[in-house]
Amino acid sequence: MTKLEQNFRKVEPYVPGEQPNLSDMIKLNTNENPYPPSPKVTQALKDFAVDSLRLYPDPASTDLVNALAEKYQVRPEQVYTGVGSDDVLAIAFLTFFNSGKPILFPDITYSFYDVWAELFQIPYNRPALDDNFNLRLEDYCVENGGVVIANPNAPTGIKQDEAFLRSVIEANPDVVVIIDEAYADFSGYTALPLVDEYENVVVVQTFSKSRSMAGMRIGHAIGNAKLIKAMNDVRYSFNSYPMTRLSVALGKAALEDDAYFRATTDRIIATREETKKELTRLGFSFGDSMTNFIFATHEKVPATVIFEKLREKHIFVRHFSAERIDNYLRISIGTDEEMRIFLKEVEKIIKEYEIGENV
Amino acid sequence: MTKLEQNFRKVEPYVPGEQPNLSDMIKLNTNENPYPPSPKVTQALKDFAVDSLRLYPDPASTDLVNALAEKYQVRPEQVYTGVGSDDVLAIAFLTFFNSGKPILFPDITYSFYDVWAELFQIPYNRPALDDNFNLRLEDYCVENGGVVIANPNAPTGIKQDEAFLRSVIEANPDVVVIIDEAYADFSGYTALPLVDEYENVVVVQTFSKSRSMAGMRIGHAIGNAKLIKAMNDVRYSFNSYPMTRLSVALGKAALEDDAYFRATTDRIIATREETKKELTRLGFSFGDSMTNFIFATHEKVPATVIFEKLREKHIFVRHFSAERIDNYLRISIGTDEEMRIFLKEVEKIIKEYEIGENV
Repeated sequence: MTKLEQNFRKVEPYVPGEQPNLSDMIKLNTNENPYPPSPKVTQALKDFAVDSLRLYPDPASTDLVNALAEKYQVRPEQVYTGVGSDDVLAIAFLTFFNSGKPILFPDITYSFYDVWAELFQIPYNRPALDDNFNLRLEDYCVENGGVVIANPNAPTGIKQDEAFLRSVIEANPDVVVIIDEAYADFSGYTALPLVDEYENVVVVQTFSKSRSMAGMRIGHAIGNAKLIKAMNDVRYSFNSYPMTRLSVALGKAALEDDAYFRATTDRIIATREETKKELTRLGFSFGDSMTNFIFATHEKVPATVIFEKLREKHIFVRHFSAERIDNYLRISIGTDEEMRIFLKEVEKIIKEYEIGENV
Repeated sequence: MTKLEQNFRKVEPYVPGEQPNLSDMIKLNTNENPYPPSPKVTQALKDFAVDSLRLYPDPASTDLVNALAEKYQVRPEQVYTGVGSDDVLAIAFLTFFNSGKPILFPDITYSFYDVWAELFQIPYNRPALDDNFNLRLEDYCVENGGVVIANPNAPTGIKQDEAFLRSVIEANPDVVVIIDEAYADFSGYTALPLVDEYENVVVVQTFSKSRSMAGMRIGHAIGNAKLIKAMNDVRYSFNSYPMTRLSVALGKAALEDDAYFRATTDRIIATREETKKELTRLGFSFGDSMTNFIFATHEKVPATVIFEKLREKHIFVRHFSAERIDNYLRISIGTDEEMRIFLKEVEKIIKEYEIGENV
């Protein structure tokens, strides 16, 4: 390594799910929404005054912040916006986790948490989930520098109940507890009401999944006004104008169409429940997924075999090589038609495998 | 302060120029382009497939990176893209300045450099510009952890020549030298050819000024492939998908219209030169600005008086209260018509002030 390179920050970068781009593919690997954004988003794009792009955006993204405040019935001072929930979480880590004590998150969870901790040199411990992929309360009742809980958890899809969250929050009054709700819209539960009860909770959400806007990079955090101010102070020190004018305009438009949001979310939940039945029939087992994906393992066929065979058919799901979960596949919920094709191919793969085994 | 707040990161956030939004205003305070983006950008917006927003963007922003590589005749591995040049610079600071030794930038320069240094706890020294607002070479030939030079400098508008840059780069082979070229398109000079000659130089540019796209948040860095890889590794650890699908599509479209870019840039340069003459006639003095703004001080009337009186007329310029420059105004170059009105009002303010003085 040259002297020049010695002072570069060394990181193990997060590896995002592959983004194949084939015309005939079925893409069930990055938890995107199979339905397009609301027609109101299309209209907002059509109505957008392109000349305004010559001007900087409003640094406070006021239009979007106000729309979120109204939607979630909080004050605008309680709302923070960022370039996807990854950007929101990164700034939250940088803002809140400076005690020098280890922060806590499970061994199996969103694989970006340890990447941010490493990047910002925040110490961390990763208590193991129990055998059913649930968090154990006692693990989060020890001295720490902060807690991060994805709820429902990724990639397991499993949800902790409110009593559990309250216990963690109450056990940790002097540190910030981040509840990452990237998938909460598919779970029927949000911890949002807790932000008015406890001053140490930040709830992070995203437009990438339930609002079909992964390509527009919009995420938000809601919490006590003091926490949000601290995040904004750090954000203004990093990039004063992170949100494009189009992100603000299209994000606001998406929030205005609650009917579409409910219809597509309900549709995905229905497809998920149908898919669960079929996967059970085919010999898969999985926890009770409350997200737009199912994290499943097959009784006979190794996950990597199914993964590779599906890939040959241009059907993409996600496989993680980490310990304890390397025999699982994370399958995003697509349209009914996509799931029908997926299940048909999986059934074929299983049959072929069984024939191969018996030869 | 509560125990909770004790672990928040403490920052003095950068204060962006105010973003007034009045229908009759003349906005010469944040160095925006007075002309709209290229018609090709309008077309790209019209042609954009809104349904694609449900999908994550390409994490590598390949289309935009390739367009930049072609435009600037470098290899794609030499190009980094980010959410405005602020985002690019923030990631560059985080990536390169980890030696523990102080980094160097002038006392008068872009006011975000010390904000990033504070945020990331990077030590820094700020050698004073000379009385003509030029950098002094000897100040940058001492042991340091890196160098940041805005060229042309902001808010002075003054350019250092290539010989100066080469001397700084050659004096510092073991640290990264960042050349921030936010305004270089208005200067007739870019240090880009130096990135193939020296492995320790990164040139940072933006679409916010010369490409009329401040609202779209696009910036880029060009350098040795090793430096760009190190920046991308850090970036992937912070936010895997910082660029929206629309940023990539519209940024690429802007690059395709070189004729428009040249025409608007030349127009702004011509207006700047005309404005210089008029300001001189009115009793202002200023360095030889090579940017889309003029940093000027008046022989009699205090800057704050002009600033406030213009404000009353809904004409906005920028005033900095920092030492040495608190009697200057930074005046962005608008359209010819905007500058005509601005100059007329300034002339009135000066006359009124002189009458007041003589009463």
